[in-house]
Amino acid sequence: MKIVIDAMGSDGAPAVEVAGAVQATEEYGYDLVLIGDEALVGRELKKYPGHSDKIQVIHAPEKIEMHEPAALSVRRKRHSSIVMGLELLKKNEADAFVSAGNTGAVVCASTLSLRLLPGVERPGIAIALPTLGGASVIIDVGANIDPKPIHLFQYAIMADAYSRYILHKSNPTVGLLNVGEEETKGTEFVKETHALLSESKLNFVGNIEGRDVYAGTVDIILCDGFVGNVILKVSESIVDTIFKALKQEIKASVIATLGAALASSAFKGLKKKMDYDEYGGAPLLGVDGRCIISHGSSTPKAIKNAIRVAGEFITQGVNNHIVEELESY
Amino acid sequence: MKIVIDAMGSDGAPAVEVAGAVQATEEYGYDLVLIGDEALVGRELKKYPGHSDKIQVIHAPEKIEMHEPAALSVRRKRHSSIVMGLELLKKNEADAFVSAGNTGAVVCASTLSLRLLPGVERPGIAIALPTLGGASVIIDVGANIDPKPIHLFQYAIMADAYSRYILHKSNPTVGLLNVGEEETKGTEFVKETHALLSESKLNFVGNIEGRDVYAGTVDIILCDGFVGNVILKVSESIVDTIFKALKQEIKASVIATLGAALASSAFKGLKKKMDYDEYGGAPLLGVDGRCIISHGSSTPKAIKNAIRVAGEFITQGVNNHIVEELESY
Repeated sequence: MKIVIDAMGSDGAPAVEVAGAVQATEEYGYDLVLIGDEALVGRELKKYPGHSDKIQVIHAPEKIEMHEPAALSVRRKRHSSIVMGLELLKKNEADAFVSAGNTGAVVCASTLSLRLLPGVERPGIAIALPTLGGASVIIDVGANIDPKPIHLFQYAIMADAYSRYILHKSNPTVGLLNVGEEETKGTEFVKETHALLSESKLNFVGNIEGRDVYAGTVDIILCDGFVGNVILKVSESIVDTIFKALKQEIKASVIATLGAALASSAFKGLKKKMDYDEYGGAPLLGVDGRCIISHGSSTPKAIKNAIRVAGEFITQGVNNHIVEELESY
Repeated sequence: MKIVIDAMGSDGAPAVEVAGAVQATEEYGYDLVLIGDEALVGRELKKYPGHSDKIQVIHAPEKIEMHEPAALSVRRKRHSSIVMGLELLKKNEADAFVSAGNTGAVVCASTLSLRLLPGVERPGIAIALPTLGGASVIIDVGANIDPKPIHLFQYAIMADAYSRYILHKSNPTVGLLNVGEEETKGTEFVKETHALLSESKLNFVGNIEGRDVYAGTVDIILCDGFVGNVILKVSESIVDTIFKALKQEIKASVIATLGAALASSAFKGLKKKMDYDEYGGAPLLGVDGRCIISHGSSTPKAIKNAIRVAGEFITQGVNNHIVEELESY
């Protein structure tokens, strides 16, 4: 089992990726490949003199930047860490790829290099969200911003396998994000998707609303990639806004500052609960390979957990389960 | 100036509406009509023996429930508080309508009774959001879930007038919600809308992302009603989730409980900052009249502020400004 890590992806690259990789070899014992600027990666690796010989470095002279157009950059930068890393999977020299880089480029290069699983028409990005009811999966959060109902149906099948074999849920519930719970509500797209899901073998509970997302009402939340992308970014922003505003308020009073210091254990506990890093990256479901996408602002812990998830995708044979399930339709 | 309040709309109706109306007459001196079940409304009004003779009660024997289908309920319940209240505007017996009831029914009945302003093809619901940069307006949050680009263009013109004349912003910036900032990003719908806005006289700053919503990056956030509805409900839910989780953490420790008590001024300050009630309801922009929609869980203060906003729409002549601006295209 060998996992390739894009060493040039995150905002803190390559330091963050190298630190995460070192932690992952120590904890899980996987064989890892760090792909990227050899000199920069080597310099970081020197900070961990006892680091395992399980980490190999492969040089990739180019880097796709965060805001480069996806398809164009993948075509032009054949020697980038993303394109070269995925080529290793294509040539069966590695089993999984982890990147905190340009999401669009990773989706595009994965689809080109790995192709899609039989029965899948579009890949989708699934993210595990922290909710009051534990982790729920939301798919798609941006791979496919103008999907057809059949794509969401396939996402549901794929997220079901992810929930069962990685998140260990026995009969995950599936909800379709809509503006109301009634079957008559929503756009034509949502209504057609509802009809497809109703006829499936999935544990489909019907429409859900925005307020159900963090309430943990269902295990799997289905939506188009435009809506999913907006939800994720709004969520991050509102959490940030609340804590910034709370800090301002606390600073304004000496007593409140003392109180906040005393209550710091509670704030830390909350931070841990809301911690995306624990869930370790978002699998790109539907490609014929394993590709885990991490946030650009990933910490070493987030990278380490993304590597763990990549390993679980391999050992659990998630893709085989997806293909079998899709074949049954 | 006479403002009609649907006394049967909110979850706490009619007590909440009556309390809000009494506060509004005391603060603003408007003439108000409470429309709804006369006996129930009368019983509530008796709790305010000194209440002004500026509040009139009109009996409406029917009530549209929260989850009734919008168009059907409006057709069938001609004697509901919503339909009868809007008829008063149609007959020029009142100048504005405020309801915390079934949003779909209010949109539908308003469009049927009041018709649309010249140059407007669809009404849109605008909500003032509390952000780090003060109040921003988001439109549409659910009146029109499958709009055309021209509808969003018209929403931008209408929200511009709302921002100028009610929120007192001198040259409000307009952002189009998308999955990325680049012009090349997004669905065909978003790209066409971007092109229309680029040619307008509006202070259009281009695409914005989900993370800009609560950062207060722009004064006006444009999106389709499906996305807007989901954003609002996700936002409410995430705030709720954070505070529930924080409470759990605080309860788990005696010292944290003491700390939280000392920091309570900060929590109260934050609550006030994030308080939707202050903004007083969401105008349904585009109808040829003034209709303010409040949240089903409105407090008396929210109703009072919705009445204030209704009054400002009348005195500021917002609809005239919208029509003039649209005529210039």
